[in-house]
Amino acid sequence: MDWKSQLNHYIDTVNMELKRYLEGKNDKNKTLMEAMDYSLMAGGKRLRPILALASYEIFNDNLQEVLPYACGIEMIHTYSLIHDDLPAMDNDDYRRGRLTNHKVFGEGIAILAGDGLLNYAFEIMLQDAVKKDPIQPYVESIKVIAEAAGINGMIGGQVVDLESENKKIDAKTMDYIHLNKTAALITAPLKVGAIIGKAKEEDIKNMENIGRILGLAFQIRDDILDIEGEQEKLGKKVGSDENKNKATYPAIYGLEYSKNKVSELTSEANQKMNQYVGRSKFLYELSNYLVHRES
Amino acid sequence: MDWKSQLNHYIDTVNMELKRYLEGKNDKNKTLMEAMDYSLMAGGKRLRPILALASYEIFNDNLQEVLPYACGIEMIHTYSLIHDDLPAMDNDDYRRGRLTNHKVFGEGIAILAGDGLLNYAFEIMLQDAVKKDPIQPYVESIKVIAEAAGINGMIGGQVVDLESENKKIDAKTMDYIHLNKTAALITAPLKVGAIIGKAKEEDIKNMENIGRILGLAFQIRDDILDIEGEQEKLGKKVGSDENKNKATYPAIYGLEYSKNKVSELTSEANQKMNQYVGRSKFLYELSNYLVHRES
Repeated sequence: MDWKSQLNHYIDTVNMELKRYLEGKNDKNKTLMEAMDYSLMAGGKRLRPILALASYEIFNDNLQEVLPYACGIEMIHTYSLIHDDLPAMDNDDYRRGRLTNHKVFGEGIAILAGDGLLNYAFEIMLQDAVKKDPIQPYVESIKVIAEAAGINGMIGGQVVDLESENKKIDAKTMDYIHLNKTAALITAPLKVGAIIGKAKEEDIKNMENIGRILGLAFQIRDDILDIEGEQEKLGKKVGSDENKNKATYPAIYGLEYSKNKVSELTSEANQKMNQYVGRSKFLYELSNYLVHRES
Repeated sequence: MDWKSQLNHYIDTVNMELKRYLEGKNDKNKTLMEAMDYSLMAGGKRLRPILALASYEIFNDNLQEVLPYACGIEMIHTYSLIHDDLPAMDNDDYRRGRLTNHKVFGEGIAILAGDGLLNYAFEIMLQDAVKKDPIQPYVESIKVIAEAAGINGMIGGQVVDLESENKKIDAKTMDYIHLNKTAALITAPLKVGAIIGKAKEEDIKNMENIGRILGLAFQIRDDILDIEGEQEKLGKKVGSDENKNKATYPAIYGLEYSKNKVSELTSEANQKMNQYVGRSKFLYELSNYLVHRES
């Protein structure tokens, strides 16, 4: 299978599983389920769960094993977008080319739909973990995800990001935002894929490092796209970071330097994947795609 | 020790542990930690963690074991209050006699502080669980808490509550709100205390039933207090439910019937505690206190 077919296969697998997790899960709460469904099934790139799947398949063959954790990560990512888009945060009306959650369901329901997705992520992962024997790798994985998503990870980055709006910030603060707001939840799936794939300790560490590098590259590319991208492809307003005076990599280091940095980081990640040659082809192709993507 | 001293001892134990969980946990994020601390250490009743402690002590003696889970539940309870108070939800300016979180830190930070507490609850519980052997009762407990807090528990109740504002709702809908928005997170600590206390399956079930009964009694008493209570003791505006046209037990069944219902539920819970006589004195006294409390 070429890597694009593999990508589509991964996306289909994740989408089917996510749908299954929502269907018929709370008949008394149509509004809540619709609001959660609206954002979760909005056709995102599924980058984070795909990284979990790709990392797992470097080390093991029973893909079903990692699916609940891949889906949990995507639910956490989606909740963070819903809350990020709220008027009190980024105040965005569009996301992935569609109205944002609070524009459709109102702010109150959007807040609860976000809370619901975060909490449900832990529910589905815990419900899977309690059935396992030995259970340790699964619980360890949920812990890794919780830490990546939390106050010393994604939420920490979101707070500093929010505080930095309309302020001139230094490179160190921007790094903190990038590493926590974005890279943490890119690192987690790569690490979790290895843990659940029963990889050796040094391989788990290696995949974690690859995650940190790719996460940073991904965020810088995002910053570049916000300047250069086409609104149509992005599904959101180009220049929205600049309008909000958001700290971006290009704003501090310039566009050219930023582009080189992305290429550099990608090579570094690729090098670390070399030892898994034969099994890491997909991840290799995906990371190179990240450098060139236009949305 | 009389039960009031025991209560104070429990409260001190929980407060000390909660403080320890916040201190020095993210030096780069003073705002986030301050916002989380502001609401978590606002001097709540600590009813939920105390129920976990009391339930545990019916079955076992090493109280430290249940503390992370008791604290996790209190963090989840606190996050739900922060989000509930937001303008898009209940729009309350005061809570426990102090300005609500968003009034002090702004809406954006309040949303993230709530997210932070929910996520951190899972972090501290998972960090404790991975160290245990056998690990099962601890992971099972986190699952019970996640389910109680989630879309088929507390969040489910919050959504229906929000949707029901300014609408005439029936007894069935009100029951759904009460059982999920409030009783679920009263039931969970009683069940978790028993699970971590290594109680027998039938005792775990029994404690869960006691929780459901007490949770309902607690919510009805809350409704009654909103009509009869004194603002000073409550720390929030009396009559605020009525002003928002919230569905309350007294509004549907009348005040007298509601009061009788609380007494009736409390006797039912007491009866189910009888078999633990000698070890359940505190829980017995606490549940009777709930019927007479004035705030």
